[in-house]
Amino acid sequence: MILKWNGWGYEGEGISPERVKKMMDILSGFLGISEKDYFEPVNLNYFKLPEPKINLENLNLNFSTERYERVLHSSGRSYKNLVRLKRGNIKTFPDAVVYPRSKEDIIRLLEFCDINNIACIPFGGGTSVVGGVDTYEIEKPVITIDMKKMADVVSADMKSKTARVMAGIRGPELEDKLRRFGLASRHYPQSFYFSTLGGWIAARSAGHFSSRYGKIEDMVQSIEVITPKGIISNHDFPSTACGPDIPRIFTGSEGIFGIITEATIICHLPPEKKLSTSFVFPSFEQAAECSRYIVQKGIFPPLMRILDEREYMLSSILSGGKIDSGSLFIVGFEADQENQDVVESEFQFVRKICERFGGKDEGKKKFEDWKKEYFEQPYLRDVLMDFCVIVDTLETATSWSNLMNLYTKVKESMEKAIFSESIGGVSCRITHIYESGASLYFTFFAKGKHGYEEEFWWKIKKAASDAISENGGTISHHHGVGRDHKIWAKKELKESLTLIKSIKNSLDPKNIMNPGNLVD
Amino acid sequence: MILKWNGWGYEGEGISPERVKKMMDILSGFLGISEKDYFEPVNLNYFKLPEPKINLENLNLNFSTERYERVLHSSGRSYKNLVRLKRGNIKTFPDAVVYPRSKEDIIRLLEFCDINNIACIPFGGGTSVVGGVDTYEIEKPVITIDMKKMADVVSADMKSKTARVMAGIRGPELEDKLRRFGLASRHYPQSFYFSTLGGWIAARSAGHFSSRYGKIEDMVQSIEVITPKGIISNHDFPSTACGPDIPRIFTGSEGIFGIITEATIICHLPPEKKLSTSFVFPSFEQAAECSRYIVQKGIFPPLMRILDEREYMLSSILSGGKIDSGSLFIVGFEADQENQDVVESEFQFVRKICERFGGKDEGKKKFEDWKKEYFEQPYLRDVLMDFCVIVDTLETATSWSNLMNLYTKVKESMEKAIFSESIGGVSCRITHIYESGASLYFTFFAKGKHGYEEEFWWKIKKAASDAISENGGTISHHHGVGRDHKIWAKKELKESLTLIKSIKNSLDPKNIMNPGNLVD
Repeated sequence: MILKWNGWGYEGEGISPERVKKMMDILSGFLGISEKDYFEPVNLNYFKLPEPKINLENLNLNFSTERYERVLHSSGRSYKNLVRLKRGNIKTFPDAVVYPRSKEDIIRLLEFCDINNIACIPFGGGTSVVGGVDTYEIEKPVITIDMKKMADVVSADMKSKTARVMAGIRGPELEDKLRRFGLASRHYPQSFYFSTLGGWIAARSAGHFSSRYGKIEDMVQSIEVITPKGIISNHDFPSTACGPDIPRIFTGSEGIFGIITEATIICHLPPEKKLSTSFVFPSFEQAAECSRYIVQKGIFPPLMRILDEREYMLSSILSGGKIDSGSLFIVGFEADQENQDVVESEFQFVRKICERFGGKDEGKKKFEDWKKEYFEQPYLRDVLMDFCVIVDTLETATSWSNLMNLYTKVKESMEKAIFSESIGGVSCRITHIYESGASLYFTFFAKGKHGYEEEFWWKIKKAASDAISENGGTISHHHGVGRDHKIWAKKELKESLTLIKSIKNSLDPKNIMNPGNLVD
Repeated sequence: MILKWNGWGYEGEGISPERVKKMMDILSGFLGISEKDYFEPVNLNYFKLPEPKINLENLNLNFSTERYERVLHSSGRSYKNLVRLKRGNIKTFPDAVVYPRSKEDIIRLLEFCDINNIACIPFGGGTSVVGGVDTYEIEKPVITIDMKKMADVVSADMKSKTARVMAGIRGPELEDKLRRFGLASRHYPQSFYFSTLGGWIAARSAGHFSSRYGKIEDMVQSIEVITPKGIISNHDFPSTACGPDIPRIFTGSEGIFGIITEATIICHLPPEKKLSTSFVFPSFEQAAECSRYIVQKGIFPPLMRILDEREYMLSSILSGGKIDSGSLFIVGFEADQENQDVVESEFQFVRKICERFGGKDEGKKKFEDWKKEYFEQPYLRDVLMDFCVIVDTLETATSWSNLMNLYTKVKESMEKAIFSESIGGVSCRITHIYESGASLYFTFFAKGKHGYEEEFWWKIKKAASDAISENGGTISHHHGVGRDHKIWAKKELKESLTLIKSIKNSLDPKNIMNPGNLVD
């Protein structure tokens, strides 16, 4: 399967034309878009690719300098990336794309790059939405290191329920291979089909079930990273007090210290049955308060999502049903034959609390509708972009006591930026729920104008990010900093930034690893 | 209350003379010790204290150079520390003990020490059992920084169930103050009464209930550390993807980067009721397998302890009951009015699995017996040491698939070291249970000879540590590296040691912070 070079997913894949038509019918009413807003994306031959400035011929590496590869690897999958690709607005490309087949390949390559001052961009699924793999504005020659050939489960410990896995493995392949050992990772980010273990770790990824099983950093028991100054690894223990937490130095490192090559991850038994339902609440705040109450009582349903009024309405419209009002709280549990009594009692507890907080059980259908529509969202973005619609998501997290304040401020700030020039909307969902707080995941869309897309997008994105930064939110809960969030990360990290830079300086003194990412 | 300078706990506190007599009657039979083995510890005036080499008069600090303070702060509470204190075998003492009252005090002090090349040892409860606060062999002048005056709850967020706490707070004070806000930490290490939040973080402490609530590193949401190069702190979010995990760089840092001054910790609702019982299994391995099965099904009783056959026998004898055989699995749940149905179903699940694995429910009494005896253990060590008995504990963790191998190898190795010269014994318990593995906590005792105590102790300790290191265990699961575990930590950390050193070098270039601890 071949990845689209200017859109989400594989070639030939996406939403069916009928479904697209239906969704466009709905959205065109909202946004006032018509066929005259459609602009055909440029084709691959449009780009002027400079001659590669690097010669890798004698290094015994598997690499490519072909057009498709260089364009595909020029960036990730942020709105900015895609709008530039669709409009042909990209001038920098990797000089070569290397597909290492072994650690030796990587070691040899990093030595070569360190000596010759060549930038290296580690590339997993390339699904970064924050500029984590962008080649833009890198002055050195650039090699993108695509890890897809290092993608196996090295070993599995069925008794300890752990697996040693190569970092280039993608979600479906990981699950498929783990299942052969009777194991499951239960890590399902929205990018699951394309993103890799190494990318998840580099960006501190979260998945559908992380309210119970944790984010990827909670699952990584040991790690191996190849840096320009050598390999760093740690032993594989369920926990240790032997010095600081080494894997946690590399989760969130976004490729600036080195290339994550392997990790041992904590796995689980694959669930045999699922219990799920949805509750409709009069308001987003009531639903949020209810979820807080549940987790603070020690009950963690693996799946918990709360759609605000706008998001629930849009979701119901896009699912083709009647227009729903209120806030939707989706809850899912996983069980097997043996623990189902426990899970059933947890489920009953959730039901009891939801009802007390004003929730009305709407059953599984709403859940199924949402699930279907959820994986369609990135494909829908592609369609909308062709009609010059600005559409993107961004996310943050904060404490429970600040949640509604942050929600309101960010939403207002984004709406102000949108409505000052156009029409559109902002919706939000709570995606991950902790005892001490939750994450907010915003979706925004606005009618754009051809030639004034990136600038308008950035205006809205900046308004949101400023509001997050000024109102006690983190600039990212699970997408990372990349290049797009750096100005806010700098404020957020304060003196820790110096610490991160000094770690980088010790592992990558020549700054060849993903230069310009995460830190300046 | 005044801490004993040469034993566990406060002056006037300990085990009642009757109980001591009873326990000694029992143990003397095992170990063949009698009154002629008793050696009175030296008194405080025995020590020759050199004149302090530092003058702090003009720094406006709260400090002491009194004999009691300097001797108390000369080391922690390891066997080595106590045997040296009891036999008068200590030659190095801090030149002064400073009790900072504010961050400004610490900043001023560290500046002074950095300029004058004075070693600083952060000191919480002083309960390190691995040499984490020892002044031994430090060539520079030494100031021990006792954090006990920075011991308040700064603020509590009752909605988010978090609290900002000063690092010098001890367990009981923390719980007492949290309770006023309706919160509880649920962190109960064996040292709870004396150790501090800062010490827990520095050493990656675990508590009774950490199988469910996590180790201290899982509870720390944000941190503040004063280093010789300035203050490092991070924002307080339930989770973030804004760069690497800053607090985790400092959990396990053991005072070598700076002084932990504050942390925001995730708290819980205080439990209203407890459900607990104990099961006796035919063997330690069967009990361990049962606990593995339970947690891998997603059920995490907050309290799980498994005593091996030897430990269960000793425990039953010391509790004054009949001599019990088999392995004891202690299980405890916590509930309130609302979630008790869920907790009850978890409890039933545990009962069902325990019975299937050959466990027999012995009810709450065994649990209560064990709990009583558990907090007595460090006091009992003091009594035994006066009779020249070598007695100590050490701990490790490994994967489930290696657990029994590690258990057997460490036990055999220790027994070999003991029996080559004397009589004694080794017992073990599993103290923390993870999906992927568990921790083993060994207790050993041997009849010693006056004047040949530390050497014999080290022989056994070294045999154990070598066996741990060679058989896939971590050199510490929750006590830390300190000075005593450095040779094994070096093997375990490998290239990560260079990384830790470079972090240290950037934060403490003159190596004034706890020099000789954790790394060389």
